[in-house]
Amino acid sequence: MTDTLRIEVAEDSLFGPGNLPYGVFAPSGGDFRVGVRLGDAVLDLAALLEDSTFAAPTLNAFLAQGPARWREVRDRLRERVEGEIPTAAVHSVHSVRLRLPVEIGDYVDFYASIDHASNLGRLLRPDSEPLLPNWRHLPVGYHGRSGTVVVSGTDIARPTGQRRTPSGTPDFGPTKRLDIEAELGFVVGAGSELGERIGTAEFAEHVFGVALINDWSARDIQGWEYQPLGPFLGKSFATSMSAWITPLAALEQARVPLPGQEPEPLPYLRERESWGLDLDLAVHWNGELVARPPYRRMYWSPAQMLAHMTVNGASTRPGDLYASGTISGPERDQRGSFMELSWGGSEPVAVNGEKRTFLEDGDEVVITATAPGSDGRRIGLGEVGGRILPARN
Amino acid sequence: MTDTLRIEVAEDSLFGPGNLPYGVFAPSGGDFRVGVRLGDAVLDLAALLEDSTFAAPTLNAFLAQGPARWREVRDRLRERVEGEIPTAAVHSVHSVRLRLPVEIGDYVDFYASIDHASNLGRLLRPDSEPLLPNWRHLPVGYHGRSGTVVVSGTDIARPTGQRRTPSGTPDFGPTKRLDIEAELGFVVGAGSELGERIGTAEFAEHVFGVALINDWSARDIQGWEYQPLGPFLGKSFATSMSAWITPLAALEQARVPLPGQEPEPLPYLRERESWGLDLDLAVHWNGELVARPPYRRMYWSPAQMLAHMTVNGASTRPGDLYASGTISGPERDQRGSFMELSWGGSEPVAVNGEKRTFLEDGDEVVITATAPGSDGRRIGLGEVGGRILPARN
Repeated sequence: MTDTLRIEVAEDSLFGPGNLPYGVFAPSGGDFRVGVRLGDAVLDLAALLEDSTFAAPTLNAFLAQGPARWREVRDRLRERVEGEIPTAAVHSVHSVRLRLPVEIGDYVDFYASIDHASNLGRLLRPDSEPLLPNWRHLPVGYHGRSGTVVVSGTDIARPTGQRRTPSGTPDFGPTKRLDIEAELGFVVGAGSELGERIGTAEFAEHVFGVALINDWSARDIQGWEYQPLGPFLGKSFATSMSAWITPLAALEQARVPLPGQEPEPLPYLRERESWGLDLDLAVHWNGELVARPPYRRMYWSPAQMLAHMTVNGASTRPGDLYASGTISGPERDQRGSFMELSWGGSEPVAVNGEKRTFLEDGDEVVITATAPGSDGRRIGLGEVGGRILPARN
Repeated sequence: MTDTLRIEVAEDSLFGPGNLPYGVFAPSGGDFRVGVRLGDAVLDLAALLEDSTFAAPTLNAFLAQGPARWREVRDRLRERVEGEIPTAAVHSVHSVRLRLPVEIGDYVDFYASIDHASNLGRLLRPDSEPLLPNWRHLPVGYHGRSGTVVVSGTDIARPTGQRRTPSGTPDFGPTKRLDIEAELGFVVGAGSELGERIGTAEFAEHVFGVALINDWSARDIQGWEYQPLGPFLGKSFATSMSAWITPLAALEQARVPLPGQEPEPLPYLRERESWGLDLDLAVHWNGELVARPPYRRMYWSPAQMLAHMTVNGASTRPGDLYASGTISGPERDQRGSFMELSWGGSEPVAVNGEKRTFLEDGDEVVITATAPGSDGRRIGLGEVGGRILPARN
């Protein structure tokens, strides 16, 4: 007989049976494989479901199997977690190693918060309209570096590069304006062919779930390099991603209408029912809560970003990641970057009694998020955190 | 006894025994595997060298083995192609299918031609300095979409999207300004860790070889979307890459000094001996030679681009691709894009007696290149070609 146990999850756990996010973990001495989080336990899916798709170091094969399969597995899991579970399939989340849950193909970062884009416009171009003319017509985005997306908990070395100075000539050294961007990432499950568009109504056929993203940014490097082809080294040193991917199926109670779009977008960006997500983010700087960015305020919807990204026929692959861009709300304590929180460095933020603007060596940032779940409970996204190490040379 | 044959390559072949570019091919009814081109023959490396590294549908595993291994294989090949070769390892280049030779991790596109950057500055910002202030300080670059890099010969559907119009509000439809960019791509072999910089002197430890690239560009889509985060859908619909990767070892005779840099670059961009490559490109539009971009005129060197890309600690992976950006020379017939050749559409180009500006449906563009090889012979790069199909909807 196999030893079994029953997992009791605390009523107030953010990882109750209505959540069940996916990750890739290794038990002590073991290989990486797919797991699902339930309370403080990690369930080994290959062992629990006797399915070799999950005996893999990434979620990609499962993602590629598409939405019918995602539903089937979730339904089976929902049932299994209510009963007896083989002890061999259960690990403590505190005793396992976690790695990046997907092999990312292309990583695209959008700029979908009107409050964030307006704040940056005011900071960077104080004498003109905060929003550029294209902003309300399309979700502005660009490609980031997929090879430097790292799992939550990875240390971040302060990047070095050419920095903008007031004189107009650059200097060189470790960034002095190291910043965060609190974002929500969308993980593509089922891909699409070259030449195929993904309409807004087909979002759920392609997108598997969400993860928290911290798009670390070196503002002085970015400010010098970004014209005319966009951000490059100011971003490409590292982007952190939560170890847990929350399936969209867990976020059904979190759907809310968008705040509204003016002018009405072009037909390919319209939705029968426009929807965003009611996620409350929290940014913790050295343990102190410094901001609560509200995802429900985002201007462009998740389905609109995907429809835009593929309107030109660009293909997508299982494991592609696209992120929302910094999530900021209209209030000061809702801003998702330190550039905005400290207003370009001119209005320091109190962090444990110290006045701070950008990140110092040794600082740690942890971003968390919760959303309405079923049965009136809330669910949590996997946190995304990282600590700043000194520049390497 | 195994049947053998001796391959006689014409004296004027661009694919003589000093070239030996690598590709991935499938013989009729067979699986994809690694091959080397010799004249009009493709040699099956797994069969010829009895080495399973090459019984793979990409070059990535071989690339990851690093420069000592690349040298060893090339030395063995140089020897083998002079003697008898098993007939079973030899295929005609005309009878095989070719696919993308590498699985590309990240794709970065630079902007390294001073003539191209100056031309675009004059066209897009006629009232200001053609070069932006950062251009002579760093190789400007950005990330492209690796998932839509396609092998030479792939048809290119005209992309649809939001187009810039003179009125200021966008319209929507198939691009009216579909363009090419003739570029040279560099394929990373041995990768580097997060936090590691690749100095200019370490170029050859990491870069395996080169391929011709056509970075198809929809100028009206790009013109509307690109501020402030750079090109996105105007590029991401497709980037074509030659099926053959020419190892750097074949290009030793092609090394030439750079034309010169003013101001002197920062120390991390300096080279003991600055060098570029003496490649002559040729752009054929529906069979007519319309431009001869000279790679030797490029401002930033291949080693400088790689050093810059990693100065912030960004890691690289086997199969990463970075491209030079459009190659243009100072003369009109040396311009590597139709935007420049037709001066923004205002000075049509004669193509088979017709006046043309941007690409029309059915047009075909083929880019070729040659370089000095050993023994006074020239070597060829694999061509990169593609035909324009009408927009899909």
